[in-house]
Amino acid sequence: MKAILVIADGMGGRPSDIDGKTCLEAARTPNLDTLAGRGATGLVDPIGPGIRPGSDTAHLSLLGYDPYKVYTGRGVFECLGIGMDVHHGDVCFRANFATVEKVDGGLRLLDRRAGRIASGQDELAAALTDIQLEGIRFEFRASTQHRGALLLRGDDLSARITENDPHKVGAMLPDSVPIDAGDAGSALVAAAVNDIARASFALLNDHPINSKRRQEGKHPANIILLRGASTLPHLPSVKETFGVRGAVIAGGALYRGVGLACGMDALYAPGITGGLDTDLGVKARTAIDALDRYDYVFVHIKGTDNAGHDKDAVAKREFIERIDREFFGPIMEGLDWKSTHLAFTGDHTTPIDYGDHTAEPVPVLFVGPNVRSDTTTSFGEREAATGGLCRFSGSILPMLLNYNNWAPKFGS
Amino acid sequence: MKAILVIADGMGGRPSDIDGKTCLEAARTPNLDTLAGRGATGLVDPIGPGIRPGSDTAHLSLLGYDPYKVYTGRGVFECLGIGMDVHHGDVCFRANFATVEKVDGGLRLLDRRAGRIASGQDELAAALTDIQLEGIRFEFRASTQHRGALLLRGDDLSARITENDPHKVGAMLPDSVPIDAGDAGSALVAAAVNDIARASFALLNDHPINSKRRQEGKHPANIILLRGASTLPHLPSVKETFGVRGAVIAGGALYRGVGLACGMDALYAPGITGGLDTDLGVKARTAIDALDRYDYVFVHIKGTDNAGHDKDAVAKREFIERIDREFFGPIMEGLDWKSTHLAFTGDHTTPIDYGDHTAEPVPVLFVGPNVRSDTTTSFGEREAATGGLCRFSGSILPMLLNYNNWAPKFGS
Repeated sequence: MKAILVIADGMGGRPSDIDGKTCLEAARTPNLDTLAGRGATGLVDPIGPGIRPGSDTAHLSLLGYDPYKVYTGRGVFECLGIGMDVHHGDVCFRANFATVEKVDGGLRLLDRRAGRIASGQDELAAALTDIQLEGIRFEFRASTQHRGALLLRGDDLSARITENDPHKVGAMLPDSVPIDAGDAGSALVAAAVNDIARASFALLNDHPINSKRRQEGKHPANIILLRGASTLPHLPSVKETFGVRGAVIAGGALYRGVGLACGMDALYAPGITGGLDTDLGVKARTAIDALDRYDYVFVHIKGTDNAGHDKDAVAKREFIERIDREFFGPIMEGLDWKSTHLAFTGDHTTPIDYGDHTAEPVPVLFVGPNVRSDTTTSFGEREAATGGLCRFSGSILPMLLNYNNWAPKFGS
Repeated sequence: MKAILVIADGMGGRPSDIDGKTCLEAARTPNLDTLAGRGATGLVDPIGPGIRPGSDTAHLSLLGYDPYKVYTGRGVFECLGIGMDVHHGDVCFRANFATVEKVDGGLRLLDRRAGRIASGQDELAAALTDIQLEGIRFEFRASTQHRGALLLRGDDLSARITENDPHKVGAMLPDSVPIDAGDAGSALVAAAVNDIARASFALLNDHPINSKRRQEGKHPANIILLRGASTLPHLPSVKETFGVRGAVIAGGALYRGVGLACGMDALYAPGITGGLDTDLGVKARTAIDALDRYDYVFVHIKGTDNAGHDKDAVAKREFIERIDREFFGPIMEGLDWKSTHLAFTGDHTTPIDYGDHTAEPVPVLFVGPNVRSDTTTSFGEREAATGGLCRFSGSILPMLLNYNNWAPKFGS
């Protein structure tokens, strides 16, 4: 038996998206409709009713973990997702290249994304290796555009500190401070964050890459902002719990990182970008091939959420239509449906008019030989509300692996 | 955006209520049916499937709190609801004026409600101010009929004590005792409860009000019984969590108290009684006016539950019809439906033949611009079971505020 979990990020919508329909309802999705007809649909609250999920917490919950118990923050998944070797006790961060200016009394934020810098990040990252922190090992890596991740390793560090990203253009950069006064481990880490801010500005502000950016009228990437401080969570791996081996296929570092933290292998393929420009056909073929070597595959598709955050209903609808055609087309052809179960859902709702995550449940589809098929024959939020899976919270991966008779018994 | 949450206490019913229908199903409710047609319906387990809720725990759960974590007992909500200033560490009680007689070996209960005393309670309460307790400040207030609330303030008090209400006519009054043997704080409070029982009998038994009651053939209100010992729970306010300001409109002290404990302001209006005789039109107008000053309003309607406890199916059905006409009539006219979300539900089922709370889920209705409308066009238990919200537990207020894009994100 094989299993495939597909999550389209932020897939859920609201009636305000397009003429009283959600983007998914408005999209033409013949393949998904066929799968809905063969299988069963329902609504899933990614974490729970009324809980507005982040992408990290939603994924943990959909993969079968209780985020209220295991979630430590986002940074650790970003570090894992860009290939860093994270040990228990390391403090991990999401990092942004940003633009600041020096004014009396400190640094003022001009651009949180340094003009969405698209080249030269690795050279800037190389310059940062000169930063020395007393008693703490420091590793920074650039990832896509302005994004990066940072890892601190040392004795008795704590992630209980405040971030130094003011999230608001024109605001002064705050110092990072320990959340619990008097805690030595968080005092060390807060001091390191503040040292990194000052040192990164000193090293980057006049860097040749930034001089060139200024000449071109672009914002310089002259500081590293840090947030999402977190340590490696204690997650029993899917292998430990279910006894099966899985792989994650995701363009976004966060999602690869979550998969890796759950014990999956990360697979790469050219053309997988984590954006609207991703090659969905490559993603499908990579998944189909991976099922020769793995028991299950988790495929993450990010573009739906990007279009939602961009408040672009047409882009979201068209991307859903591309998922149907370019991803599910090959999937329908390429899988052995006699011995495969598939689950498809989103990790939250991202309505167009709001442009951010909301708490409404998302539709979910299970298909395969052991699924009790229902009467739904199309895939959308309101049709799924009438489906045979009814409404439940999280745990999509455990439900999927259970159809393959891989779930551990609780009790006897 | 604005939001309004309406809870009709004990609204749910059973087929045994009226000719195979619940009181709600049997009631003519054209306004609710119209709202159901515009919005979406479903079933909510106030706390969880199979859990038979109290009114206090159900309300905490519907307002988004986990009653298993935060609930300390009912007394504190009664004290808050009648306007007492409750501090952390105070021990609060629901109090009853009751009738006892002195017999060999103690006091025997004759009437738990002192003939549902309807006048003179404030004078009796004034007589109790003579009670002196060593090291403990004592405050008692009468509320409606036989009801009142009592607050004890002192160092290191504990609410872990047994009540002294035997709940059974003819039974001897038990002494209050600490639940945990050897605990000094609860020993103090149990002793205070016993002192108050003895002292209240001494002060009230021959009080002129009671002499007059005896002459009139009525039971004297000659003792204070205490139950629901509890301390102020640690509830993050709705303001803290969602950043918005709300008000509670409720005739019953308990419901005002729950709203106050969650950080709402309590609004009053003449004619709001917390009973079947309440002025539902005033309630609607008070809510509509309040939405000019507040982000959201929570309206509690008690009469449905009263009729259920009285096992009066006709009264319950007719009161539901009055809610539809006298409350929802003005609400449908008076709200700006382009920018308002409304939720309507009950806090539990109170079937007529049982006359007390049961665990079945209750119907719920959400309506407003961001609600994914469904195909239901009437409002009742069995129709709601086919609605687009399916079935879920608690969290009605978080779901409502999420529709207004006010929910905090968990994770990132």
